[in-house]
Amino acid sequence: MSASSEFAVIERHFRRPPRHADVRIGIGDDAAVLAPAAGMELAVSVDMLVEGRHFLAGTDPEALGHKSLAVNLSDLAAMGATPRFALLAGALPDADDAWLAAFMRGFRALADRYDVELVGGDTTRGPRNVCVTVIGELPAGTAITRAGAQVGDDVYVSGSLGGAALALHGLRGDIALSATVLERVRARLERPQPRIELGMALRGMAHAALDVSDGIVGDLGHVLAASGCSAVMSLARMPADAAVAGLLHGEHRELALACLLAGGDDYELCFTAPLAARERIEAVAGALALPCTLIGTVERGAGLAVLDEAGHALARLPAAYDHFR
Amino acid sequence: MSASSEFAVIERHFRRPPRHADVRIGIGDDAAVLAPAAGMELAVSVDMLVEGRHFLAGTDPEALGHKSLAVNLSDLAAMGATPRFALLAGALPDADDAWLAAFMRGFRALADRYDVELVGGDTTRGPRNVCVTVIGELPAGTAITRAGAQVGDDVYVSGSLGGAALALHGLRGDIALSATVLERVRARLERPQPRIELGMALRGMAHAALDVSDGIVGDLGHVLAASGCSAVMSLARMPADAAVAGLLHGEHRELALACLLAGGDDYELCFTAPLAARERIEAVAGALALPCTLIGTVERGAGLAVLDEAGHALARLPAAYDHFR
Repeated sequence: MSASSEFAVIERHFRRPPRHADVRIGIGDDAAVLAPAAGMELAVSVDMLVEGRHFLAGTDPEALGHKSLAVNLSDLAAMGATPRFALLAGALPDADDAWLAAFMRGFRALADRYDVELVGGDTTRGPRNVCVTVIGELPAGTAITRAGAQVGDDVYVSGSLGGAALALHGLRGDIALSATVLERVRARLERPQPRIELGMALRGMAHAALDVSDGIVGDLGHVLAASGCSAVMSLARMPADAAVAGLLHGEHRELALACLLAGGDDYELCFTAPLAARERIEAVAGALALPCTLIGTVERGAGLAVLDEAGHALARLPAAYDHFR
Repeated sequence: MSASSEFAVIERHFRRPPRHADVRIGIGDDAAVLAPAAGMELAVSVDMLVEGRHFLAGTDPEALGHKSLAVNLSDLAAMGATPRFALLAGALPDADDAWLAAFMRGFRALADRYDVELVGGDTTRGPRNVCVTVIGELPAGTAITRAGAQVGDDVYVSGSLGGAALALHGLRGDIALSATVLERVRARLERPQPRIELGMALRGMAHAALDVSDGIVGDLGHVLAASGCSAVMSLARMPADAAVAGLLHGEHRELALACLLAGGDDYELCFTAPLAARERIEAVAGALALPCTLIGTVERGAGLAVLDEAGHALARLPAAYDHFR
């Protein structure tokens, strides 16, 4: 009996000896077996990335390996969970060893940075598709949900918004960007940094959180709907990516607003917290060298108003990114 | 802000209130949060099914919903785990509500049968692809691995082999099958029954187990390689599907042998157990009304020999199904 090449692919690229004592059985059996620590809960999330939809054909496989894990870790960050394990399923048009090796370099580098162990996987042929499942842990009862926002809460967002969407417009030729700007925002699009440390620091501090994957308007809207509140956000306070900010007052204002308010793929955290937490949030942001900008306030009622630079509510908000649009 | 249609899809088809107390947060947040019971370990597995490779275009969506969960539950069965939770990610060429509703009917029916709760998911557009992650639980230390086979063990397989592969040949027109036979074996292909109850019953009884997804020769080979043993199997003892058995001694012998020895998709359990367990295994098989046939013996050395009806080792074994072939 000769080893099948699928088995060889798994051996070559995926399998390593278990590194954590709570991984009883790692890759190579029918299922991984994990032994959760007493008193800990597990956060579990899955994301599927499809060529032509979430990434362009010809995308650097190493960047894709990074991103496919990053977008999942971002979901764990939004719950305040510590990332622990990942499972990787993928379809590839052919058994391209160099492509897979590069993909795994990107995937591994990010996994190793957060000590995430790859415990399972599945490989097959088909139109290129990457599906990652991540498992994180957190002390029982400490998960930060979408439903916890309270009237009077501050609304924050980490880092900056709109860069990833601007990169997509630049790559599509919707707008001419200088090589320097394109290179910088393209890194936002292709190598998003999951805000893991921030999410963990927000446990016990934030009332509600999610990651900005489909645009702040739509994503914050999910928090408000789940929490039964409304919010007012100020455009002037929004931490726009520098290049996006530079376009807000010229002929490309509409595009810049769309990037800022409805641009997907930034993977920043949006969260709400009581006023009493302001100093602690500033301290966390300082310690992590990651700005957390106060962009609005949670109020009674339903819906989301965005005030423009003159203090008037924008009449029409750009639509959220929708994978079934 | 209007709800995105992706969000609407999730609401309509996926979301239900959490049913189990250990699901702290179900579908609808960035991640599900699960609270494992003390003393239990978790078995986790993922499988990706691609249109044109694992299922034909035009496959009945309800059957596909069943199968996409069944093949994952089969992995848990092979570990002896009790299925608990599932996450479902899928790409669809369009937002076909009727297709998705039928798919979820098949998925839900099987999930409900084993009290499996859907706790997470992701939907997107793309070439049709279904990726399911399942989580089961089992008492600490009781997982049945591939590496535990011991010299002298009996080798068993549940149910019958070859039916699913014969159906595929029939559907492809490689062989003419009567409508009655085709209908029966097609159910093996499209609605495999994960051997959950058997797997759970084998905890503490079987030394090693896996599910037969790629053909008994290749799959048993994985057990032998992981356990550092060899085995001898007898063709005459193999529980061939009735239609496959009927072809073993005629012009289609090669095709029948390929179905029986290397046919994928039967999702029976192959396991090894000490002689002392024979009576208990018979009792379990009787209680479950699921035959467990003794097909061979684990021996020293490496490799797998299959003896034909005259007791001679087959010179050439059919290759295992390989997704990168």
